[in-house]
Amino acid sequence: MLQEFTGHDVQLAYERIAHLIRRTPLEDSIYLNDANHRYRFKLESQQLGKSFKVRGALNVLSQLPADQVARGVGTISTGNHGIAVSYACKILGIENCVVIVPFGTPANKLDRIRFYGARVMQMGSNYDEALTLGVNYIDCHELFYVDPGDRDPRVYAGQGTVGYELISAHPTVDTIVVPMGSGGLATGVAVAAKSLKSDVRIVGVQTKACPAVAMSLANGVLYRHYPVQGKTICDAVVGGCGSLAFQMLPDLIDQLVIVDEEAIVDALHFMVVEEQCVIEGGSAMVVAAVHEYPELVGGSDVALVITGGNVDRAMLTQALS
Amino acid sequence: MLQEFTGHDVQLAYERIAHLIRRTPLEDSIYLNDANHRYRFKLESQQLGKSFKVRGALNVLSQLPADQVARGVGTISTGNHGIAVSYACKILGIENCVVIVPFGTPANKLDRIRFYGARVMQMGSNYDEALTLGVNYIDCHELFYVDPGDRDPRVYAGQGTVGYELISAHPTVDTIVVPMGSGGLATGVAVAAKSLKSDVRIVGVQTKACPAVAMSLANGVLYRHYPVQGKTICDAVVGGCGSLAFQMLPDLIDQLVIVDEEAIVDALHFMVVEEQCVIEGGSAMVVAAVHEYPELVGGSDVALVITGGNVDRAMLTQALS
Repeated sequence: MLQEFTGHDVQLAYERIAHLIRRTPLEDSIYLNDANHRYRFKLESQQLGKSFKVRGALNVLSQLPADQVARGVGTISTGNHGIAVSYACKILGIENCVVIVPFGTPANKLDRIRFYGARVMQMGSNYDEALTLGVNYIDCHELFYVDPGDRDPRVYAGQGTVGYELISAHPTVDTIVVPMGSGGLATGVAVAAKSLKSDVRIVGVQTKACPAVAMSLANGVLYRHYPVQGKTICDAVVGGCGSLAFQMLPDLIDQLVIVDEEAIVDALHFMVVEEQCVIEGGSAMVVAAVHEYPELVGGSDVALVITGGNVDRAMLTQALS
Repeated sequence: MLQEFTGHDVQLAYERIAHLIRRTPLEDSIYLNDANHRYRFKLESQQLGKSFKVRGALNVLSQLPADQVARGVGTISTGNHGIAVSYACKILGIENCVVIVPFGTPANKLDRIRFYGARVMQMGSNYDEALTLGVNYIDCHELFYVDPGDRDPRVYAGQGTVGYELISAHPTVDTIVVPMGSGGLATGVAVAAKSLKSDVRIVGVQTKACPAVAMSLANGVLYRHYPVQGKTICDAVVGGCGSLAFQMLPDLIDQLVIVDEEAIVDALHFMVVEEQCVIEGGSAMVVAAVHEYPELVGGSDVALVITGGNVDRAMLTQALS
């Protein structure tokens, strides 16, 4: 049984990090709204480092004891988590920050991780190899390992501040739609939002190309690794189910929706061309869910969490074509 | 001699509108910075309605007497000014808002103007015809005409809050680079910024396809209309020089830079693909100026004003190709 967290923990997290982050806007959709439904985008794509991940990183890293700050921190990530940890260390003055990535990670991702000050080390030929080698490196060098959303309740509570901020400022929202990778964000948002408004519905969305959380919950088996089936534009939200998410989500999630890649590509196109809002492929999942399964999404005052804005050129080109 | 405005007027404008607008971030460039230069983007592309124009509209409309509020307001605009006036009326509860556009204005622009509540009326076959017919309509119906940046010092002071906000929060900035259409924003920003920091440099940038302000200042002749030469991606910043800008800018502007369209297209590509920041063509002018004429831009702590984010599909496709 892993240590869990409560709405109070999320509130404390928010008090800890609110002055360090951006309070992101909740912006009306121009085209999704109709007479019975208001859809708004919670734009974490405008967060520091262009994703919500900095919230979790700041919450855990701001609680580190001084001797650990002096030794430094490390993590393994090719994307938003790596950028977020680098950014959080810069903000908090943690000088020794190592982000481990596999060989072959695109240069523009490494540029962003390095930009905020982290040292990038390349190990292994894919994420799993980098993870094994990286955890070993982090242990050997007595660095603090920044959990990417697997089991650390402080990371989950930090990500949950998205939901706390949302419902505090917009208590009329009755449904929150959250993209799921490991399920960490959905867990955090659900705990936070339901502690403020018990009947708010939480809808989690995954891509059919990698429905790790959905399958873990359906089968009662924690899939810590999950293969990607076919091509996906949701690179930020593939991988296994988080351990703590697996433990907590069954009591928290009201609806699971699985969308296919074709619908996600269409949704990304819609967001860029119609809404003029550039977002990551993974974030387009929530819009695809509204397009394809409006009755499953439900609600009348619906917040769609746009998790990130680090969209690459190939994906944008695809979205426009 | 038109009525001018001062830094104090901008400060009063900011006190009037600050609680109604977004305080937009100043975000580090990932790729422009080097050892001797820090370049940051003032992201008015994240402002309400996706451009700075709402600042001027709110400042003037929040001062209307009750009888004029009851009669309503109108303006002529195919783009950001129309969206801004519509949005400002919504925020302020001004019910009768008419935005006049020429026939042939793209649907997605009309959608945005209408979204915030304005009534759209189509008149004339181009902007100049719409202007003539529209001003007549506005007069006949006793609507308040919302100046788009020609001569109303309240609009100028409202736009100037971009500079007030910038220098108040970031007093180390030594150079502000501003895209120029009518020159209204540059005038407002210059007045505001220099009232807070007298030695801050203001660099105004125009496209070679329509350098109305630059030619007006060079020749000492107010070109209220100016033809577009060739194709331009800077649709939000073409047209003539503002009357009040023409009167005030000579004492305010430290450097004029004219960039050609090829450099602007390259800069837009750079912003979208490298910086992962989607902006309007007109806003890319300031980045083109840094790319092409870094010594003219000068400074060591440089703020580039990104005026808007309403980029259309064709432009984005061009930027990616």
